[in-house]
Amino acid sequence: MTTAQLTAAVLLIGDEILSGRTKDKNLGFIADYLTAMGIDLKEARVVSDQEEEIVTALNALRRRYTYVFTTGGIGPTHDDITADAVAKAFGVPIDHDPKAVEILLAYFRELGREPNEARMRMARIPQGASLIDNPVSKAPGFQIDNVFVLAGVPKIMQAMMEDVAKRLSRGVPMLSRNVEFRGGEGDAAKPLGEIQKAFPSVVIGSYPFQAPDGFATNLVLRSRDAAALEEAHAAVRRMAQELTEAGKARGWS
Amino acid sequence: MTTAQLTAAVLLIGDEILSGRTKDKNLGFIADYLTAMGIDLKEARVVSDQEEEIVTALNALRRRYTYVFTTGGIGPTHDDITADAVAKAFGVPIDHDPKAVEILLAYFRELGREPNEARMRMARIPQGASLIDNPVSKAPGFQIDNVFVLAGVPKIMQAMMEDVAKRLSRGVPMLSRNVEFRGGEGDAAKPLGEIQKAFPSVVIGSYPFQAPDGFATNLVLRSRDAAALEEAHAAVRRMAQELTEAGKARGWS
Repeated sequence: MTTAQLTAAVLLIGDEILSGRTKDKNLGFIADYLTAMGIDLKEARVVSDQEEEIVTALNALRRRYTYVFTTGGIGPTHDDITADAVAKAFGVPIDHDPKAVEILLAYFRELGREPNEARMRMARIPQGASLIDNPVSKAPGFQIDNVFVLAGVPKIMQAMMEDVAKRLSRGVPMLSRNVEFRGGEGDAAKPLGEIQKAFPSVVIGSYPFQAPDGFATNLVLRSRDAAALEEAHAAVRRMAQELTEAGKARGWS
Repeated sequence: MTTAQLTAAVLLIGDEILSGRTKDKNLGFIADYLTAMGIDLKEARVVSDQEEEIVTALNALRRRYTYVFTTGGIGPTHDDITADAVAKAFGVPIDHDPKAVEILLAYFRELGREPNEARMRMARIPQGASLIDNPVSKAPGFQIDNVFVLAGVPKIMQAMMEDVAKRLSRGVPMLSRNVEFRGGEGDAAKPLGEIQKAFPSVVIGSYPFQAPDGFATNLVLRSRDAAALEEAHAAVRRMAQELTEAGKARGWS
């Protein structure tokens, strides 16, 4: 690779995730999306609806990774403080954005809804940010520098990612291979560790699960080097087959 | 309250969550568990299977919150580095723990599995830690100071929480009330903000969702002060009813 690897972090904002009331679905979606684009998601954080928590986490993440994606806290109510916190993190003013105002006024007119002060708060955008299109409920997200500020409602967040994707660089895609091994990971651990050492450009993960007929393990190989991946994959398959045969002889399921 | 509020953080460890391959289910479970015990989950982080990432995050969290719960990375394979990372974070040595060795040897004997070097790695416990019972697959978690190190497989993690719960202090339970409002949150925002100001001991969250017949909003009130909560709840219900009646007159669904 001649270019530096693209990296990312996700910052989920909201008391409702930390209280357990809402089970987050945004992290998994963004993770899949970035993996498909060849961008490595390196870290995620969940913080409460408190300005200093958001500012501290955002400043730590945006300086460290190529991209940061935030979800939540951009609605019209008093607990929606993300836009202000982002402005504060960047040290820029925040005010009603003319384009956002126009989008919202047109939408509320169409719906017959009152464009009251609270609703128009959703047009407040930090200086220097560009809007992110929201095809579901119009109130835009925004991008400022390397930070993408998205809605918390999964359907809206996912729709916003369409606009976001156009602005992201694509990395060398991460390729992966999977070997399902019918046995405990403790049997595979030693030979697997040796294969891992032999193929430093391939990251090998081992994920045990309960199959209907006993313990089983998913061995997942990930690499940007297709040739090394194929070699390592062949080695892991051989290992799994040998272990399965040996295991059968000893009466494992 | 005469005692300081109990707080907690969760640290999810594993490349598989960041790649999107595994969709995390542990955060939501622990969040519900702690809320029921009156402990406030304040922050969560997801980091990759890299020692320095785990050490840095764990040290940041354990110094800040009453309790920290980690999940993942305590199996027998080369990518299971949590126990070593925790030992490093605390600056203590790590070695095979006699009690953990005994538990594992008995289990592997029963299963007819070879207690090989990789499997016995699961008995390596940082000095000064106490074991956490694993009724599912025996390999123990451990507690060191205010940090609870748990498995990543949800079924095993959940079973370990039974033993963990006995060691946690209980806080004053957080009480909650819910008001479902048939309208956009923009209509509720201003009066809701006023109610929030009038009841500073109650945290009011506003969560829009798409109901079959149009936009709707869940207004969630949370407090440790039962009397204030009931008063605020009555005020929010009154507000929702007034808005619904006004809304109906204007033809909203």
